Amino acid sequence: MRIDVLTLFPEILSGALPHSILGRAEREKRVEFHLHQLRDYALDKHRIVDDRPYGGGPGMVLKCEPLVRAIESIQALGEPAHVVFMTPGGVRLNQAIARKFSEKKRILLICGHYEGIDQRVIEGWVDEEISIGDYVLSNGAVAALVVIDATVRLLPGVLGNEESAGNDSFSEGDLEGPQYTRPEEFQGRKVPEILLGGDHGKIREWRAQRGREKTKLIRPDLL
Amino acid sequence: MRIDVLTLFPEILSGALPHSILGRAEREKRVEFHLHQLRDYALDKHRIVDDRPYGGGPGMVLKCEPLVRAIESIQALGEPAHVVFMTPGGVRLNQAIARKFSEKKRILLICGHYEGIDQRVIEGWVDEEISIGDYVLSNGAVAALVVIDATVRLLPGVLGNEESAGNDSFSEGDLEGPQYTRPEEFQGRKVPEILLGGDHGKIREWRAQRGREKTKLIRPDLL
Repeated sequence: MRIDVLTLFPEILSGALPHSILGRAEREKRVEFHLHQLRDYALDKHRIVDDRPYGGGPGMVLKCEPLVRAIESIQALGEPAHVVFMTPGGVRLNQAIARKFSEKKRILLICGHYEGIDQRVIEGWVDEEISIGDYVLSNGAVAALVVIDATVRLLPGVLGNEESAGNDSFSEGDLEGPQYTRPEEFQGRKVPEILLGGDHGKIREWRAQRGREKTKLIRPDLL
Repeated sequence: MRIDVLTLFPEILSGALPHSILGRAEREKRVEFHLHQLRDYALDKHRIVDDRPYGGGPGMVLKCEPLVRAIESIQALGEPAHVVFMTPGGVRLNQAIARKFSEKKRILLICGHYEGIDQRVIEGWVDEEISIGDYVLSNGAVAALVVIDATVRLLPGVLGNEESAGNDSFSEGDLEGPQYTRPEEFQGRKVPEILLGGDHGKIREWRAQRGREKTKLIRPDLL
């Protein structure tokens, strides 16, 4: 898979991507990351990419010309990418969307900044607007990192056994129940008896029930 | 504000934090970041921090001893921090939670990895479990970066005028309406007439209506 990112802050991503599972996935050639600085596509001397919004209001809006020049140039570097604009006003990322992305050959993530980007770019050049959650970030590069991480870990061969993807929250519906490991007793706190026995049917049932209770308590919307 | 992060991958954060608004906020001493490698708190030769889950199942669980040794050591470095465990099984981060965090003097973010952490640590040493969204990440350092970004931009003096925090999606309820900037016409696409006039009452109304329409279409749950 190939992932391109268009951003004013490629250094956030180039600082974060070489490490852990993402770094290993790239070294093993399961994914290619290509970072693009939006300012490189502004033709004026000061490399200006933003301007004040029509109709007034605070903040700045990313302009059409450098964005479209960048998108079209980046698209020409390979087979056409699925173009995703990262914005708090988009559809919320979930595990199904991450899976859909992981099945694409190529995606291009466009990172917003300031008040957003000119709507005409969204209408003409963007396939999908995605939000990572109901909060505002200082820029879209952090959101792009989240999409990249959620997507790349689903690519074939990326996760080792100990990082296995099968049993995660959201793969199945309810949140996961509690986990315990050695020692059996820690500062007076004990591992639940049932987990120490060998009845795997009962253990499965207990875990499912604890997961269901947790879901009811903090995420009733998932039920 | 002081933010501590306990993680197996501090290099993801040390790569991302020095840039853009977060980097500037730290240089201007509005926030201090302290990154801690969990393995530094494992006392055995191989610095082992995880073990297999009681009751069986895939994946590994982060053990009590190194985690608690780390949390207690880090807490001793300053006034007690509000302790947050990053997990897909937590309460979903939103703008109100980010604001609450931004009002604290100190938070400690604990990043999961593998299948999670021993439940006894959560019960005894964690104040709050937070998820950044309904998707699984390869590790919690990326989630911590999101919490840090959403929180730090709300600290007094961090955002400049052009990055203003006032008008954002979620500050008010509906998603934001579309934004436009120069030129008036781009590749045959025009800025809506109403934004070119000077009737600020009408412009406000038009924007609110477009924001409401967008919210109905893609985020009816917010209404």
